[in-house]
Amino acid sequence: MTVALRQLATIAADFEAEFARVLHWSAETDAAIETRVADILADVEKRGDAAVLEYTQRFDGLAAASMAELEITQDELKAALQQITPAQRSALEAAAARVRDYHQRQLEACGRSWSYRDADGTLLGQKVTPLDRVGIYVPGGKAAYPSSVLMNAIPAHVAGVGEIVMVVPTPKGERNALVLAAAAVAGVSRAFTIGGAQAVGALAHGTATVPAVDKITGPGNAYVASAKRRVFGKVGIDMIAGPSEILVLADGSTPADWVAMDLFSRAEHDELAQSILLCPDAGYIAKVKAEIERLLPGMPRRDVIRASLEGRGALIHTRSMEEACAISNRIAPEHLEVSSREPHRWEPLLKHAGAIFLGAFTSESLGDYCAGPNHVLPTSGTARFSSPLGVYDFQKRSSLIEVSEAGAQVLGTIAAELAYGEGLQAHAQAAEFRLKTGGVR
Amino acid sequence: MTVALRQLATIAADFEAEFARVLHWSAETDAAIETRVADILADVEKRGDAAVLEYTQRFDGLAAASMAELEITQDELKAALQQITPAQRSALEAAAARVRDYHQRQLEACGRSWSYRDADGTLLGQKVTPLDRVGIYVPGGKAAYPSSVLMNAIPAHVAGVGEIVMVVPTPKGERNALVLAAAAVAGVSRAFTIGGAQAVGALAHGTATVPAVDKITGPGNAYVASAKRRVFGKVGIDMIAGPSEILVLADGSTPADWVAMDLFSRAEHDELAQSILLCPDAGYIAKVKAEIERLLPGMPRRDVIRASLEGRGALIHTRSMEEACAISNRIAPEHLEVSSREPHRWEPLLKHAGAIFLGAFTSESLGDYCAGPNHVLPTSGTARFSSPLGVYDFQKRSSLIEVSEAGAQVLGTIAAELAYGEGLQAHAQAAEFRLKTGGVR
Repeated sequence: MTVALRQLATIAADFEAEFARVLHWSAETDAAIETRVADILADVEKRGDAAVLEYTQRFDGLAAASMAELEITQDELKAALQQITPAQRSALEAAAARVRDYHQRQLEACGRSWSYRDADGTLLGQKVTPLDRVGIYVPGGKAAYPSSVLMNAIPAHVAGVGEIVMVVPTPKGERNALVLAAAAVAGVSRAFTIGGAQAVGALAHGTATVPAVDKITGPGNAYVASAKRRVFGKVGIDMIAGPSEILVLADGSTPADWVAMDLFSRAEHDELAQSILLCPDAGYIAKVKAEIERLLPGMPRRDVIRASLEGRGALIHTRSMEEACAISNRIAPEHLEVSSREPHRWEPLLKHAGAIFLGAFTSESLGDYCAGPNHVLPTSGTARFSSPLGVYDFQKRSSLIEVSEAGAQVLGTIAAELAYGEGLQAHAQAAEFRLKTGGVR
Repeated sequence: MTVALRQLATIAADFEAEFARVLHWSAETDAAIETRVADILADVEKRGDAAVLEYTQRFDGLAAASMAELEITQDELKAALQQITPAQRSALEAAAARVRDYHQRQLEACGRSWSYRDADGTLLGQKVTPLDRVGIYVPGGKAAYPSSVLMNAIPAHVAGVGEIVMVVPTPKGERNALVLAAAAVAGVSRAFTIGGAQAVGALAHGTATVPAVDKITGPGNAYVASAKRRVFGKVGIDMIAGPSEILVLADGSTPADWVAMDLFSRAEHDELAQSILLCPDAGYIAKVKAEIERLLPGMPRRDVIRASLEGRGALIHTRSMEEACAISNRIAPEHLEVSSREPHRWEPLLKHAGAIFLGAFTSESLGDYCAGPNHVLPTSGTARFSSPLGVYDFQKRSSLIEVSEAGAQVLGTIAAELAYGEGLQAHAQAAEFRLKTGGVR
């Protein structure tokens, strides 16, 4: 099966132009969606439960007499654990245990309060505390991923968040047992079968039934993304995700079919997903291309995979592994596989990526489900400035300052000088009042 | 001088209604500003330097033949250090040293890479790296604060950011020597005399002269805030700040004039700033009120202070310190002074605040300038879910995963089970290809 996959070479004269075409992607904001979402949010803020009920009936075809009917009880979540197969249940529980362990290490490594006293007895530090209540958006319908429930709820749980409220649309009332089972395993506190902008509005503003949360995380469609962007400020949000991406940096030592399947594993997500191979070995690139063509016909999602590879994929021949690393840094991919015999040689050269998968055995899909690290990662080059979802997203920091009487003498003089320089006399005098010498300028 | 300052008591029947009035504030988004900013950003993205030059001439009254003329050289920054007084220079340097020291401690406490290996040799962790290049927006004109330069640039510097680009509008070409001197002290790499939405656009998209950055931090007016919100996603941003706030939680042991001046120090910022006193001692509240009336006439910025106190201030009499702490948590203030003999008794009860100032000697203004912690803090209740600006805002994390061959056997089975459950066969097969047993379902 021939696949019209873009092939580039860094030595080619037109490389930069071709490369720009590969990278080009922009999140179109649809003005109609923006307006519709603004209206829904305003309505939910004003009418609460009644508005949420109405939109849920209209958009999800799910009628209910009251919001209470749209709550999934803890008993129903637990019952879902019995509805899935024993193998699924073990896999869910094993994945949850690994994800929990990793995020517990993350909490230990970077999520604890700290403080110190300086020579004059002044205490300085930061107190780290969990958020009180968070909302997790879980998509329903065709892209319902139980692994997303684990990846959003577990770090919140490890952070010590008091209450985790899940919303998941159930079009025509169809509930996904694996999603509900994941909620049971991950320790979700409350769950509602609502979705779309109305669910984001309910979580941000609160209704009589749905409690207002402090932060909303989790992926969703264009309506959900637009709603999250709009409620940002009133509540925290995680990020606005673009299409998923994989970049494989290969030295040619990994079986070519493994790499082909890794490229498929991104491409099968969605036609806009991006799969790129960077490799200094032209012969190896040809082998991977051949494996792609051999394996594609056997894939149930071959149409999506082909559309994704032909639309946004690329095989890029580089002069060297060093150059491949430099190009990877320009892309700042969501998932970066270093499929090399010497992954630790290249890792230090890699500056920007959501997650780095080292060595041939580390297929990206292991990270999606159960290696431990989070699978919610920055996309579209935002790894230049943002990070995987983590315990730190469910905590916040408060600075602690306790100035001693001795400290106030030293700091007061400095602060007063700068405050007068800024024309803020009350700032200056508040510092000067604490000076033993008394008096203000 | 009588000040019509709102007085509340938690025992009053109408307390909740009155309290809601005190807290009410919403960032009005002005549709005209939104449209104007969208146009400016699109124009800067398209025309680059030419657009920035044109808007700078139009809005700042600053004409230049080329963008190069709008760059402030390192020599000019250094020269500013000679133009300010020796006392100002020492104060700036002392403040910078303390801020640097605090953020260095922050880096040590929570900004280092970490990793571990599990029993089967699989490596898991996170690599923490600095951003390549950041932009710092520094307001010009009447609210030009050199302390803001220190508070934005120093954590970026400590994080290891490669290049720090400052933009500061200079209406009619008037440069503030203290701001430029602060840039020299803080280690700003490049500086441009541009501002408004056009400066944010230049930093986000890059022009021939202004380099594109990865994140933009720093306060600004409504145009700047709107522009930051719009470029979010293309680059990172810090936060959209609302009016400044102080909440003083007092047990009556601090001299009343100190507390009155601390309330003034917020109120003098701006008429929308909010100053609130919470205290269980009615007699002490009366004393603070008397000091407010005694001290106000002597303040140069008395008109702003009065407008702020009368419009948004409040003195709240509580049943107890415990209740005062609970109300403080509902407000989640930007600055929280625990003006008590026993600050460490109350601190554990305080869950949400940007910065907590403990004890009578810790005037909030010391924190604004030189105590060490950052003065860029979450406002408008966002301390429920966000944190002071810090080293962590200038770093990002990449997950590290290296699965051993043994690990791939265990993880591959789990991942495949869950991937098939989600209908993602390529994910499953990528994991199964690494199994020694070979073959896929």
